[in-house]
Amino acid sequence: MEVESSTQAQTYRAALTSIQQLVHIEEHVKNYRPQILVLTGLPNTRPALVDFAYLICKNNSLMVCGNVVEQERLTFEMRSNLQQKAYRYLRFTNIKGFCSVADNSNLHTGVAAMLGLTGVGKVKPNILMMGYKNDWLTCDRNSLDQYVLTIHTGFEMNVSVVILRLKEGLDCSGIIADIDDLILKAPTKKAKENSVCLLLQFKLKFDPLRKEGPRKTRRKRKTKTLLEGNQLPKSVLNSIILFQRKQKKDTIDIWWLSDDGGLTLLLPVIINRRSNWSETKLRIFCTASGVHELENEQKGYESNFYLRKDYLIK
Amino acid sequence: MEVESSTQAQTYRAALTSIQQLVHIEEHVKNYRPQILVLTGLPNTRPALVDFAYLICKNNSLMVCGNVVEQERLTFEMRSNLQQKAYRYLRFTNIKGFCSVADNSNLHTGVAAMLGLTGVGKVKPNILMMGYKNDWLTCDRNSLDQYVLTIHTGFEMNVSVVILRLKEGLDCSGIIADIDDLILKAPTKKAKENSVCLLLQFKLKFDPLRKEGPRKTRRKRKTKTLLEGNQLPKSVLNSIILFQRKQKKDTIDIWWLSDDGGLTLLLPVIINRRSNWSETKLRIFCTASGVHELENEQKGYESNFYLRKDYLIK
Repeated sequence: MEVESSTQAQTYRAALTSIQQLVHIEEHVKNYRPQILVLTGLPNTRPALVDFAYLICKNNSLMVCGNVVEQERLTFEMRSNLQQKAYRYLRFTNIKGFCSVADNSNLHTGVAAMLGLTGVGKVKPNILMMGYKNDWLTCDRNSLDQYVLTIHTGFEMNVSVVILRLKEGLDCSGIIADIDDLILKAPTKKAKENSVCLLLQFKLKFDPLRKEGPRKTRRKRKTKTLLEGNQLPKSVLNSIILFQRKQKKDTIDIWWLSDDGGLTLLLPVIINRRSNWSETKLRIFCTASGVHELENEQKGYESNFYLRKDYLIK
Repeated sequence: MEVESSTQAQTYRAALTSIQQLVHIEEHVKNYRPQILVLTGLPNTRPALVDFAYLICKNNSLMVCGNVVEQERLTFEMRSNLQQKAYRYLRFTNIKGFCSVADNSNLHTGVAAMLGLTGVGKVKPNILMMGYKNDWLTCDRNSLDQYVLTIHTGFEMNVSVVILRLKEGLDCSGIIADIDDLILKAPTKKAKENSVCLLLQFKLKFDPLRKEGPRKTRRKRKTKTLLEGNQLPKSVLNSIILFQRKQKKDTIDIWWLSDDGGLTLLLPVIINRRSNWSETKLRIFCTASGVHELENEQKGYESNFYLRKDYLIK
C-alpha cells in the first residue's frame, strides 16, 4: 500500500506539473493537437464513433466522451454510475479516454458547458465530434433544432466541428450488450482486439429476450459464428467494427475546398498513419483557378503538404 | 522553434499519460488530495481568497479559480479575455493555478456545472471554497438564496465545502489595480513577493480618478509609503496580504467536533507546514464524553493525529 500510494502521488504530481507548465505556452500551428470532445452518450452505445475519435487521439491527444443527460438533474450517485459505466467500457475496449457528464440542460447548452469547462488549462477539447443525424427527416422538430444548435455552439465556442456519418447509423444501444452484464456474467480475459465483437456476441447469446442457454464460445471464428448463428446483418456488424478492422487497400477521399487551416487534411493524415489504415491511399481534391495553372498549383499544394506517404492530387 | 515545439510536445504527452494513468486508480484515504475550486470571480478581485487556497494547494494539488458570469451568455472573445486576464494575474503573483469561466447560468447552477465538468479524470476539484457573505443581512434576498443554494450544491455534488471569513471582507475590486494597467503602464520586473502590494500601490498612485501624476517608486519602503501617503486603512491592507505574510507565533484553533473524515484537521496541518505559517501552533478542540475519560481520550486523539509539529489538545 505504501509503495502504491507513493507511486500514485508521483503520478499525480507529474500530471499536475506538466499541465501547469502547459498553461503559459502560446498556441501556434506547430503545437496544435486535435483534442476531441466526442458526443457519444454512454460510449458503449456508439462504439464506432468512439473508435473513430480514438483513431485520431490514440497516443496523441485528449479524448473526452461527452454524455449530455437532458432535462434532468442527476444526483451524485446517478452521475457517478454513468461515469463509472463509461470508464468500464473504455477500459474494457482498451481506450485511453475520459468521460464527462453534463446534466440539467438541453443538448446544445450541455455541449457549450462541456466545451467551456471540461479539461484544465491547455488540456481541453478543441474539436467537437458528433454523429450524423440519420433520422433528420423523420425526427421531431425540437430534436433537429437541438442538433443544429449544437453545431452552431461548436463554432461559437471556436472549436472545430467534425461529423461522422455511417450509412447504418451509429447508435447501437439495442444491439450491444451492457458492459456490466458482460463483466458480471462472463469474466473472461480482456479481449484486446475485437472487444466490441465480444460485446455483440454476448448480447446475442445471453440476451434474456432470446431465452437461449449459453453455449461454449468458439473462440477461433468468433465473428463468423456470430454471423451464422444469429441474424445480425453483415453490414451492421461491419459498420460497428469499421474503425477497429484492418483496412484493405482503399482510398480516403479528401475534399479540400478551401484553405481553412488544414484540419481537413490533418485528420486523414493522422488516420492514414495508424497501422490499421496504413495501406489506404489519400486522394486530395483541391480547387484550381484554371487549366493552365493546374501544374503549378499542384506543385504548390505538394510542397505545402509535408505528407510522407503516397498521395494523389486531383 | 523546433526544439521548443518538441519540448512542448513532450510536456503535453507527459501530462496526458499521467492523467490517463490516474483514471483507474481507486480513491482511498491515502491518496486523497485537497483539490480546490475556489469561487474568486476574477482572481484579482479577491487576492486573499486566492492566497488562502494556494496555501493549501501549492506544490500539492489542483487549484481552479472559478468565475461564474451570471445571466449572460459570453461570446468566445469575452470568455477568452476573462480567462487571459485571470491567468495574467496568476502568473504575476506566481501562483500555479487554473481558471474556469461558467456563463449563462446563475451562481449555483454555474458552480454545479464547474464541479461536474472542470478537470479531467481524477484531476478535478473535490473541495468547493468560497468567501463568507459578509453582507448577508443587507443584501437582496435572491443573492442570499443563491449563496445558500451554492453551499447545498457543494454537498449535493459530494465535495467538501470550505468558507473563508475575514472581518474586512474579501472583495477588493475597488482597491486593487487592474492587472493589465499595471503590466501595460509599469513594466517593472515581476515582484515575486508582495505582488498584491504592488497592485495596491499602483492603483493608489495611477488611479485616473485620483488625478495625480506618477512619481518615482520608493522601492525599499513600499508598504510603508503606501500607508503613509494614502488613506488605506491598515486593517484592510493586512487582511489583503494576510496569507502572504510571515505569521508571528500565533495559534490556529481547530474545532474538531465530529469525526467527519478529517479534512477539518488536514487543511490546518497543511497550512501549518508552509514556511510562512510554521511558527504558528495548532490547538485542537475535541469533544469528550466526561471528565473521567479525559486523559484516555486525549491519548487516543494523539495517536490518531500523526502530527509532526507541536500541538495542543484542549
